[in-house]
Amino acid sequence: MTDRSYHHGNLRAALIEAGLAALEHSDEGPLSLRAIARDVGVSANAAYRHFADKQALLSALAAEGFRRFTQAQAEALAGASNTGDARLTAGRAYIGFARQHPALFRLMFSHFLYASQDPDLQQTAKASFDGLLAWSAQETGTEPHSPEALRQAVARWSMVHGLSHLILDGQLAFLGEQTDALIEQVLGLYASAVPITSSASSPQR
Amino acid sequence: MTDRSYHHGNLRAALIEAGLAALEHSDEGPLSLRAIARDVGVSANAAYRHFADKQALLSALAAEGFRRFTQAQAEALAGASNTGDARLTAGRAYIGFARQHPALFRLMFSHFLYASQDPDLQQTAKASFDGLLAWSAQETGTEPHSPEALRQAVARWSMVHGLSHLILDGQLAFLGEQTDALIEQVLGLYASAVPITSSASSPQR
Repeated sequence: MTDRSYHHGNLRAALIEAGLAALEHSDEGPLSLRAIARDVGVSANAAYRHFADKQALLSALAAEGFRRFTQAQAEALAGASNTGDARLTAGRAYIGFARQHPALFRLMFSHFLYASQDPDLQQTAKASFDGLLAWSAQETGTEPHSPEALRQAVARWSMVHGLSHLILDGQLAFLGEQTDALIEQVLGLYASAVPITSSASSPQR
Repeated sequence: MTDRSYHHGNLRAALIEAGLAALEHSDEGPLSLRAIARDVGVSANAAYRHFADKQALLSALAAEGFRRFTQAQAEALAGASNTGDARLTAGRAYIGFARQHPALFRLMFSHFLYASQDPDLQQTAKASFDGLLAWSAQETGTEPHSPEALRQAVARWSMVHGLSHLILDGQLAFLGEQTDALIEQVLGLYASAVPITSSASSPQR
């Protein structure tokens, strides 16, 4: 096989694009670095110069996933006009990402990430969570790393993450064509819930 | 191998118990009906009289999981003294079940369930969801199958399901020893959130 001529950086980017596309079809079988090299039109050896093994490729795909995900969340929040609107648009973007890229979403938020030592993946995942923390801090009027921002962040993450999983895992399949409407309704409940503050969280405890 | 003497029903129950135990160690390899038969002390043939194949065994394990899960949820709700307390105790029971039985939890709430045609599994999963619907209806003062009860049910399910997944998938591992405290705080926010009603959900829409 003759390698097409790629700049070093271009080939890496091309392999990641092809890997993301292959991931979308991963229910047809496990990812193969060799097959991805073929998709891009280079030899397996050329691909191995960028990714030592499949784990390295998966880390790079997850990191690229986090970059796109963080970008989508930031755009959703930037377009929102108030607290409820921000929850709606960010929630829609979260669930939309999960539905459009189910395999990538599972990869990013799987135990794989926790186990990975890849610095780029760790950094992009942290940037994503930091964005969530900053938003939660802003809404609650606290510092980004305050305990209040942390619990707000985890609470809202849980909500949209759980809804995404229930959808991807077929748990709401009984809804059929009403799925989209119900997602909107659930996000509407979440968006219009009275913003939960530390003072409201302490009774009865 | 000499089969121990089991009543028909007893052997089925023994195989399910052994299967649940094996599932807890399923990170060591896939479940094997043959190995489970060995654990129980019967021949593979005796096990196949109860479960045609591994899928049939997995369905039975998931169904038993739903029975225990529904029981745990009902007990948590029965002991609660008010709305906030019910959310707390049911949420704790949900997350506690996921943490104690991670593989069973994943099996029950995976695409497997959606694809299964096993009547017992379908029935036990439905009973579990019906319990959630009934609780949501009671809290919102609507009928169990009202649209309002449905969206409330999915909203609260999403919250505890997402938190469970984030924990099981190592996404909150950075919390270390603070994990339990944060779970309590997030459940506290959820429990003390102003109950979300249909009238509060309609502005801006």
